[in-house]
Amino acid sequence: MIKVIAEDFIKEEYLEIVKPLYAELVAKTKLEKDCIEYNLYIDQDDKTHFIFIEEWPDHDALDRHCQTEHFRRLVPLINEHQSKECEFTIMEIFQ
Amino acid sequence: MIKVIAEDFIKEEYLEIVKPLYAELVAKTKLEKDCIEYNLYIDQDDKTHFIFIEEWPDHDALDRHCQTEHFRRLVPLINEHQSKECEFTIMEIFQ
Repeated sequence: MIKVIAEDFIKEEYLEIVKPLYAELVAKTKLEKDCIEYNLYIDQDDKTHFIFIEEWPDHDALDRHCQTEHFRRLVPLINEHQSKECEFTIMEIFQ
Repeated sequence: MIKVIAEDFIKEEYLEIVKPLYAELVAKTKLEKDCIEYNLYIDQDDKTHFIFIEEWPDHDALDRHCQTEHFRRLVPLINEHQSKECEFTIMEIFQ
């Protein structure tokens, strides 16, 4: 099992453009057979800071997610409106 | 509902000292009646970077967690070994 935090930073003037793209990305990713968890959150102190919390069985499943039609179509459209690069943290559970 | 990411950065030479403190903190927090989720993860690229992912019904519940005996005893002991300040992100679900 791997847990992922993926953070997006969006230019404020494009928030209403990216929201339906995020909604579609979340809905379609939740339908992937290997998806254990895929939820999107907004920082209470910064409405331009979007945070995905994800769980996948392994790295291969995460790689397959990144190759899906919805990911390859929607993520570049979202990233056109980013104010800075995305940040990713891949984690293992503390035992 | 609020989601929290709390990130700790520990000096490498103290990892074996903090691990049992973290284990106790996680076990006791999971027993709190308002705790919905409280899991600790380790960054795959940095074994000194510890990440809590938490879920609480509201801010009051989070405040009560921070006043528990186990939190007030264990967190200062952990923080004695931090390499830099903790970072917190409090989030709402994207609708």
